[in-house]
Amino acid sequence: MQADMQGFALDPRLEADTRPLADLALSSLVLMNDSRWPWVILVPRRPDLVELFDLSEADRTQLVAEGNAVACALKAATDAEKINVAAIGNSVRQFHLHVVARSSGDPNWPRPVWGFQTGIPYGDDAAHALGRRILKELA
Amino acid sequence: MQADMQGFALDPRLEADTRPLADLALSSLVLMNDSRWPWVILVPRRPDLVELFDLSEADRTQLVAEGNAVACALKAATDAEKINVAAIGNSVRQFHLHVVARSSGDPNWPRPVWGFQTGIPYGDDAAHALGRRILKELA
Repeated sequence: MQADMQGFALDPRLEADTRPLADLALSSLVLMNDSRWPWVILVPRRPDLVELFDLSEADRTQLVAEGNAVACALKAATDAEKINVAAIGNSVRQFHLHVVARSSGDPNWPRPVWGFQTGIPYGDDAAHALGRRILKELA
Repeated sequence: MQADMQGFALDPRLEADTRPLADLALSSLVLMNDSRWPWVILVPRRPDLVELFDLSEADRTQLVAEGNAVACALKAATDAEKINVAAIGNSVRQFHLHVVARSSGDPNWPRPVWGFQTGIPYGDDAAHALGRRILKELA
């Protein structure tokens, strides 16, 4: 991905592991290409962010508003039992916020999704259908 | 823990697994009693919160301000490589925000701390010393 005018470019590993969903006011919203659980990621389009406290206060407020709306939409779109929201970034340092829909009986319930075995990619139709459901709830 | 006048009481499992550090304006800040990694938890003192979107907008703003300040203080107090911030709650449903200091070579790096083996409790002196360092940076 080429850098935008502000010098932001999506981390190549995030780009390889996800499908684009939408550009929100601050963040790019992408779908993790792992059909084991509905899992989206918000990436603020600012260069050189690593930690939550690297964001300006205004950007942090906007990120949380976007993350909260996405969490709400993911819950409505999936009827999940619990939404997990996390900024971890031990492997991919570009700041990104995970929003994951979890339910009893999913492959690693109740333990976290990160680092658990290998993802199972979506087929195109399933990815598009889930993406549409999420964006409809987000609208 | 008895409920306060608003009907809030710390979840018994969180109470058993942590040591109290401070009451911030909205959240109780507690230290996870697990010496494998510096790990604190913020619990907004409001009853019946499960998801991030259960908080009022004002409370969510306050929680993020507090979580951000704690993340910053934990980084300064520990010189960790990466701060992990997460609201998961698959096992303990009372809303709580984890802030964890991670570094290369810690027992589960770069994978997450949640659900990884069994915690190793602090001795009193080590817990107090870490608590003091965190609160000093937070002041």
